[in-house]
Amino acid sequence: MSQESRGTAETYEAFLDHVRQYNYVGDASGVLGWDQQVMMPEGGTPARSKQTSALSTLRHQLLTDDDLADWLDDLDGAVIGEKGAVVREVRRQHDRARSVPEDLVRRISETASNALPVWEQAKADADFSQFEGTLEELVALRREYAAEIDPDRDPYEVLFEDYEPYLDFETAESILTELREELPSLVDAIAESDVELASPFNGTYDEDDQEALVREALDVLGYDWDRGRLDTAPHPFSTGTQFDARVTTRFSPDDPMGALGSTIHEFGHASYTLGLPEDHYGTPLGSSRDMTVHESQSRLWENHVGRSKAFWKLFAPRVTDHLGVSASPQAFYERANQVYDDNLIRVEADELTYHMHIVLRFEIERDLIRGDLDVDEVPGVWNDRMEEYLGVRPANDAEGCLQDIHWTHASFGYFPTYSLGSMLAAQLYAAAERDLDDVAADVENGELDRLYGWLNENVHEYGCRYTTPELVQRATGEDLTAEYFLDYATAKYGRLYDC
Amino acid sequence: MSQESRGTAETYEAFLDHVRQYNYVGDASGVLGWDQQVMMPEGGTPARSKQTSALSTLRHQLLTDDDLADWLDDLDGAVIGEKGAVVREVRRQHDRARSVPEDLVRRISETASNALPVWEQAKADADFSQFEGTLEELVALRREYAAEIDPDRDPYEVLFEDYEPYLDFETAESILTELREELPSLVDAIAESDVELASPFNGTYDEDDQEALVREALDVLGYDWDRGRLDTAPHPFSTGTQFDARVTTRFSPDDPMGALGSTIHEFGHASYTLGLPEDHYGTPLGSSRDMTVHESQSRLWENHVGRSKAFWKLFAPRVTDHLGVSASPQAFYERANQVYDDNLIRVEADELTYHMHIVLRFEIERDLIRGDLDVDEVPGVWNDRMEEYLGVRPANDAEGCLQDIHWTHASFGYFPTYSLGSMLAAQLYAAAERDLDDVAADVENGELDRLYGWLNENVHEYGCRYTTPELVQRATGEDLTAEYFLDYATAKYGRLYDC
Repeated sequence: MSQESRGTAETYEAFLDHVRQYNYVGDASGVLGWDQQVMMPEGGTPARSKQTSALSTLRHQLLTDDDLADWLDDLDGAVIGEKGAVVREVRRQHDRARSVPEDLVRRISETASNALPVWEQAKADADFSQFEGTLEELVALRREYAAEIDPDRDPYEVLFEDYEPYLDFETAESILTELREELPSLVDAIAESDVELASPFNGTYDEDDQEALVREALDVLGYDWDRGRLDTAPHPFSTGTQFDARVTTRFSPDDPMGALGSTIHEFGHASYTLGLPEDHYGTPLGSSRDMTVHESQSRLWENHVGRSKAFWKLFAPRVTDHLGVSASPQAFYERANQVYDDNLIRVEADELTYHMHIVLRFEIERDLIRGDLDVDEVPGVWNDRMEEYLGVRPANDAEGCLQDIHWTHASFGYFPTYSLGSMLAAQLYAAAERDLDDVAADVENGELDRLYGWLNENVHEYGCRYTTPELVQRATGEDLTAEYFLDYATAKYGRLYDC
Repeated sequence: MSQESRGTAETYEAFLDHVRQYNYVGDASGVLGWDQQVMMPEGGTPARSKQTSALSTLRHQLLTDDDLADWLDDLDGAVIGEKGAVVREVRRQHDRARSVPEDLVRRISETASNALPVWEQAKADADFSQFEGTLEELVALRREYAAEIDPDRDPYEVLFEDYEPYLDFETAESILTELREELPSLVDAIAESDVELASPFNGTYDEDDQEALVREALDVLGYDWDRGRLDTAPHPFSTGTQFDARVTTRFSPDDPMGALGSTIHEFGHASYTLGLPEDHYGTPLGSSRDMTVHESQSRLWENHVGRSKAFWKLFAPRVTDHLGVSASPQAFYERANQVYDDNLIRVEADELTYHMHIVLRFEIERDLIRGDLDVDEVPGVWNDRMEEYLGVRPANDAEGCLQDIHWTHASFGYFPTYSLGSMLAAQLYAAAERDLDDVAADVENGELDRLYGWLNENVHEYGCRYTTPELVQRATGEDLTAEYFLDYATAKYGRLYDC
């Protein structure tokens, strides 16, 4: 080893130590966030805001640190391979953070934290006006944030890059456009179909029984309870690390399929997190890729496994055991794939109309951030477009524009990744089927190791070693495309609805 | 306002902002600690250790910061009153932290965090040898820590000051000596008494029913559920802020009195935390005084309220409702005050023999830290002294030296404050009775506002405005003394056991 490279190795170690501290603090914030949504009594909000904000400020300081800037300058181009990937990822975050003043970071964090109970109350009262001022603040803060990063670019595109930095916005927009153009004809054909799918859930089901059922689903899927837990939250989510990745769900008395779907969805997220390499914990190589890839994992398990005929051959008897509902696997399969063109709620949507919900949110938040739409217009525009895209109009704001938590978190630019993730899920599942042959037989036998192994080898274990486009290419041999999803959807729903 | 004092005011604001950040990060750590003990799956330990350690390092950096050193130098003597108290408290912490290297802080935090599952397993297996190496590390680290602060002083005294900085160690030791000299004759007299106290719990009681009972106790005491929650933990504790102070308890099928006592104890801690001024959150004026004062609050509610005849007049019917145990208030009162001179477990001890448990731990940890006792001798010494002080010998390490969590937390010097807190509880309760007259009547009527108000006005609302000795003087007109406790105990148990 030459003198110079020994120096580089030492610099890299110091740099990596610093990066780890930064990520550990981020994961600590994650625990505080989980607690706030799942455990914290309401009165705790003012203190929690301060705590979260303090951690956010410290992270910002660690990320914008002068030493880190020097190390990055020294390491740029001096290291390759895995180390090069680590430098690339930290460089991107560092440069972005350096452009945003610390005080703005703090204000965003505090405002978002205080926004949570306001949104919850507004939603409970189905009254957008209670939340309007808060949303205005959040939009203004995010516009300010985007302008700090680059005042000359489309602020929405800048925000989108926080969630999906390597996939260009044009690709994202074109995929959403393709969905908007292609899906309605399929949805219309379904609406016109004479086929009536089975609907085996007709009663109300005890929450304890539903919980036992979703716990059994997690058992079947191989969720590692020593490294996770299940709780309820108003808006289900998953969070954690490769050592402790938790899922949440919610129960509705008459819709056990909703709790099951959302649990399997969050399991998919957690399975990615738990699949990250342990020895790289705290570094980009031990961190998950961005939102599209994360969502591909949740959607793959939710839709391609949990909504498959094979899964229901396996799981139907468990539903009978826990809920006392006797029905054939085919009946449950049909119920799991029922298309509701009149559904108002995104997280309860089927896998086709779901994307129209995303297009709607994408358009509204893009226009809000671009300044083309005022906050007080949101409920009206929301309701009009629901009617236009899905033929149904929300009766109130709780089932309209207050249904999602994302804006409350000051997250704008996140929604498109849901649809992009579904596209990637279909593309990955098709690739896994090519490589493994008859994945459905595995699912039917409850033997999910091969599929999980394939995902682990092709996605999880890389952490951020590759950019999202690189990862997609390596795993599937192609760029991200909507084709696999559209083929899958057309074939599946064509068979189901005979259309 | 003169030019100079305006400068001081600005310095003070910058200083206070910094102090708040420090305390917010500490409270974030508190949430992580709560989660680790109450919610976290076991696999999460490695990551949690890293997160906790990162926060600990950042706190250390904030506390030892050069700017803070300058601000403290500028403010020392330049501000008085409340501000002077804030400077005094931060100065003490700052000076202490400056003497301890960051790396040592990090090693202590990581070792303690990793120690938790080791201790839990060792306790489950009743096998001290599994924990021995870990305890050796913890003792060595704390000795190193004490030596960094002052290599010329008794290291145990140095550690004691972390928990009780203003009460001198000589006072503490003399109070413990007084207890050791005075209590045995009372305990012996009770052992020789012919009186047999009532023992109304003879069955096993469902955990759900016990939980409903302790929740009702918290209701009766006025616990604010909007700013707290109750969970179970292997070693009950309380943690939080004035906005969110949580309690934990544990249930044993045949001992509902145990869960009730521990719940009321933790309620006492939480009531202090919740009574701290909200607008001083994050500063010493909004922080609780040290361990003796904290423990005085838990003991006051546990013993002087929860073990009083008046409380049982109020609460007996609730026990009947929840557990189906019909007995008179007098019978429950007697059961709550049963003295067990053969009890091995500190947290299940009655309020008399409890202090012999503390004396035992005090002596062992003092000798460990002073290097007068080797870690491998702990089980033997523990068992011998249990026999000497209480006439009973643990059958295994789980009911012996593995029973407490404190050493696992690297906490040495903490135990004495338990007894000191009990002394202060008796002293404060006597002062409240002098001021309020007939507190017992309030308790019997479930009207605890006057007592809570007195404690709030005389203790809680000051935060760290006064040192512990000052606070004790202001609230009671005297220095801390064991006399009130000994008088109370002699009178109460004399009546109960006719001795």
